Amino acid sequence: MSHLTTVQNWLEQNKFDIAYVSDWHNIQYFTGFGSDPIERTLALFIFPDKDPFIFAPALEVEAVKKAGWSYPVYGYLDHEDPYALIKKHILALTSAPKKWALEKNALTVERYEKLKTNFPEASFTGDISSLIEHEKLFKTPAEIEKLKVAGKWADVAFEVGFKALSTSRTEQDIVAEIEYEMKKNGIMHMSFDTIIQSGANAADPHGAPKADLIKPNALCLFDLGVEYAGYMSDASRTVAFGEVDQKSAEIYQVCLEAQLAAMAAARPGITAQELDKIARDIITKAGYGEYFIHRLGHGIGQSDHEFPSIMEGNELVLEPGMCFSIEPGIYIPQVAGVRIEDCVYITEDGCEAFTHTPKELLVLPVK
Amino acid sequence: MSHLTTVQNWLEQNKFDIAYVSDWHNIQYFTGFGSDPIERTLALFIFPDKDPFIFAPALEVEAVKKAGWSYPVYGYLDHEDPYALIKKHILALTSAPKKWALEKNALTVERYEKLKTNFPEASFTGDISSLIEHEKLFKTPAEIEKLKVAGKWADVAFEVGFKALSTSRTEQDIVAEIEYEMKKNGIMHMSFDTIIQSGANAADPHGAPKADLIKPNALCLFDLGVEYAGYMSDASRTVAFGEVDQKSAEIYQVCLEAQLAAMAAARPGITAQELDKIARDIITKAGYGEYFIHRLGHGIGQSDHEFPSIMEGNELVLEPGMCFSIEPGIYIPQVAGVRIEDCVYITEDGCEAFTHTPKELLVLPVK
Repeated sequence: MSHLTTVQNWLEQNKFDIAYVSDWHNIQYFTGFGSDPIERTLALFIFPDKDPFIFAPALEVEAVKKAGWSYPVYGYLDHEDPYALIKKHILALTSAPKKWALEKNALTVERYEKLKTNFPEASFTGDISSLIEHEKLFKTPAEIEKLKVAGKWADVAFEVGFKALSTSRTEQDIVAEIEYEMKKNGIMHMSFDTIIQSGANAADPHGAPKADLIKPNALCLFDLGVEYAGYMSDASRTVAFGEVDQKSAEIYQVCLEAQLAAMAAARPGITAQELDKIARDIITKAGYGEYFIHRLGHGIGQSDHEFPSIMEGNELVLEPGMCFSIEPGIYIPQVAGVRIEDCVYITEDGCEAFTHTPKELLVLPVK
Repeated sequence: MSHLTTVQNWLEQNKFDIAYVSDWHNIQYFTGFGSDPIERTLALFIFPDKDPFIFAPALEVEAVKKAGWSYPVYGYLDHEDPYALIKKHILALTSAPKKWALEKNALTVERYEKLKTNFPEASFTGDISSLIEHEKLFKTPAEIEKLKVAGKWADVAFEVGFKALSTSRTEQDIVAEIEYEMKKNGIMHMSFDTIIQSGANAADPHGAPKADLIKPNALCLFDLGVEYAGYMSDASRTVAFGEVDQKSAEIYQVCLEAQLAAMAAARPGITAQELDKIARDIITKAGYGEYFIHRLGHGIGQSDHEFPSIMEGNELVLEPGMCFSIEPGIYIPQVAGVRIEDCVYITEDGCEAFTHTPKELLVLPVK
């Protein structure tokens, strides 16, 4: 429970009486219990000097206990007023807290106003969002082990996808084949919608797989990941399905050089924006800078949209335990798109990838 | 654009200067453009007497135009301050709005405070959440057509799943088979994680499919849905895989009677809580009331967690065009679970289901 202790210490040092964690991913991070309550209320309350408690929909109370939560958990039924009950449970523990710290990047205004109504004397100036983001930046060895397993499954998924390529299958069919294999192996969730883009379709870095047949003699881009024990993988590979034209081969090599250079440079002491620049400079020098239209990478862990963001303007100094993607891309409209991506963790003197599918251009026979 | 006009009229009648829509599903509802911006800012601003505009990540600007949005769309880059830009775009249109209406059930406290900083003279007392929820209660004929297609695919999914049942397959394998068939047909998203629960596993209405083999001579519960053109289906069937014991057969018949009674009673004029009570009374009279531990239903449309909520305490009078689930369940721990669910739309004089898979107990041969 050391993550909880971090919050408790921060509350004490900053003289807050209570912290209210409302994002369910963060509740999972602190408590081991994870479930999206959708429109219902799920909350974790942390005090500087008292045991924390979870407040949850009644349906989830047993699941909270099963997840190993050893502090109190209180349920509520759909027709009950959650904030009146929250107030009751807090007042059973302590006098009405005066100084609150909220998760301001997650809590809605509606719930904030309900809190204010129930605790009219309180102030809500504290924000624990940054503290949680900072705490989550540094993955423990146990978390890194889970990320490694998630990465291994991404490698398996690539293998399935590469084998499935066929001119008689659509991009969507390849997604179906990959996810079928994953689910048959008990990997029930992808990290995000699997992306398969053949030929010029890959020039849209935000595009979805289409009902288009896989094109022969063209690049095919794969971007995928799985969830394992609550941790995500995320990796991209671009392969040649048959012999590709010279331009496609060239942008592949430029992108690969940029990716390998950033992998080699990722280590403690370098900043996020310096790392982005190393990859971007290579692509720019080769004349494709205008086609690299996104940041170099994003954090990875229990989600694929956490910190650190590897981009211009982020002066964060990388440190051991930080986990993020390195994913340069070159997207030439109507022509082709390439992205090569591994997620890595920073070690004492460099970085290690979670995925190991080879990155030299793989040329697959057309079938 | 009649949905937008509803908001404009409401703003005018209630003397608000501006509405800020922040939930991406609702932005899709009003604009036709739908994409989860995750941590980035996506916003729709509506004025009583001026054209609305969308503010979006730069990467999405082209997609907004492609979606058919004919009013302005302004982009921002990752290193720019979205709220400073939003202020600039608003001030280019009008003097600083004084009276704001927010989507308080979606907007985060962090963004609310940024708004307050940028518009220090403004008041933020307005809440358009209820107006949007109310507007979304009534599906148009075009929306109902999409919900019907989504329902048809759910019926196909049941057929695939029933055929796949085998004592050599796990619950997770059945999920894999169903979703594989859907994706091969271009149905790329399920509405939610497909639930397959065999035997006593079905007694947990929130449980996930396990790596347990399908049990012979036991009930097996299916709860699934797909997304079609942005609209969701959601349906449950419970089948007998072989001959089941008397208790299982009995709770099935009680649940079926409750479901059919509620289907027959759903019509304009009845309230949500009355409908819940019709099903609940049947289950209670049969002695299983304590095992029906959730509301009778929830709204369905672009999501499966919208209004109306069919439950005790909701005095909403049903009207034509409302769409929701009717899903009584009986869950006896360590024994068995049954849930039978259709989503329906209210017609002029009754209701019509979106799914048509038969509900008389289907007994499948063990294989």
